[in-house]
Amino acid sequence: MPAPELPDRAVVDLLGLVALGELLAFERMAVDARLAPDLRRRAALGEMAAAEIANYRRLADRLAALGVPPDDAMAPYAGPVQAYHDSTEPRDWAEAVTKAYVGDAITDDFVREIATTLAEPDRQLVLDVLHDSSYADFAVAEIRAAVAADPRVAGRLSMWARRLVGEALSQAGRVVAAERGAFTALGAQVDVPGLFRRLTEAHTARMAAAGLNN
Amino acid sequence: MPAPELPDRAVVDLLGLVALGELLAFERMAVDARLAPDLRRRAALGEMAAAEIANYRRLADRLAALGVPPDDAMAPYAGPVQAYHDSTEPRDWAEAVTKAYVGDAITDDFVREIATTLAEPDRQLVLDVLHDSSYADFAVAEIRAAVAADPRVAGRLSMWARRLVGEALSQAGRVVAAERGAFTALGAQVDVPGLFRRLTEAHTARMAAAGLNN
Repeated sequence: MPAPELPDRAVVDLLGLVALGELLAFERMAVDARLAPDLRRRAALGEMAAAEIANYRRLADRLAALGVPPDDAMAPYAGPVQAYHDSTEPRDWAEAVTKAYVGDAITDDFVREIATTLAEPDRQLVLDVLHDSSYADFAVAEIRAAVAADPRVAGRLSMWARRLVGEALSQAGRVVAAERGAFTALGAQVDVPGLFRRLTEAHTARMAAAGLNN
Repeated sequence: MPAPELPDRAVVDLLGLVALGELLAFERMAVDARLAPDLRRRAALGEMAAAEIANYRRLADRLAALGVPPDDAMAPYAGPVQAYHDSTEPRDWAEAVTKAYVGDAITDDFVREIATTLAEPDRQLVLDVLHDSSYADFAVAEIRAAVAADPRVAGRLSMWARRLVGEALSQAGRVVAAERGAFTALGAQVDVPGLFRRLTEAHTARMAAAGLNN
């Protein structure tokens, strides 16, 4: 028997959250690109950012098709998502690519999990906004190069990644506490402790792939 | 008789200049998007920015195909183009959209003029990076709305646009003074005073279209 579908309000909430995440991730990656040591890398992070705004457009168009102004669907999340970025401003290029790597991947894992709760066409739309793995490959290569140039960087970036996850979880708690319909509905359908465990395990594996400690 | 083609070095210089302009315009528009009064407008400027980085990619790929690392072709222009942006940081949303409007349009006019000096496939490539006019329509609507809300804004934005043009010309002078092959070759082929006159006339017409004074 297929899982029951989320009510429309919950779908709007989830699309709004993902859309806002894409919009602000775009901006922050574009800003962080200025930390790049050369123009090639600067452009590479800029292109990662541009992929986010293209995804934003698809989600915003779907919200509009559902009769919801995208701004209305996104507004409830602006505070926590902005706070996450404000509290995690990278100080250098290695921190910027680590943030893009960690943030993109956790977002993808979360999106993949919530996709299972959606009916079509929203399920496919949400799966389509997953990131191209070439960006993760680029970020891992940059992190490994930074550690190779100075092994002490590994400890600093490991601590930075833990802070990113901690801040993300803290702001996620604020989103859930705001009692949006989506999360009540989601909680009724998915194994939330299991979801957190899977996200954490995948994050740990990614840290290892980049040569960092969780 | 067709105009003689620019030597390869000059083509590389021109592609490098346009590529760098796109890359830095992308970043600045993405940064300036944070000045938007709502998420819809914030996303609109972000999408204008994303169009620039897509153009950057096409130009960088062409440079690579010509055997030139894009960074090498862009490096000579990094100082003046960065200086232009550093000296013209918008203070609010109306200044940000005015800058995007003025900057995009003058870039397009310049690109259209230099395209006539290029052989294929570079001629078509350069013409393909011209901006979608929907962005200009968006910017004009925003400028007109800002002036409608407060008529005194017209004077301030008119002055701001003059400053943008003045800074751009000043930095363009630095580029030419740096004696890149492209500009010597270009000067031998195009009527430079005529080029400046045409750029200025088109700018004046655009200011009027947005309800501003030149």
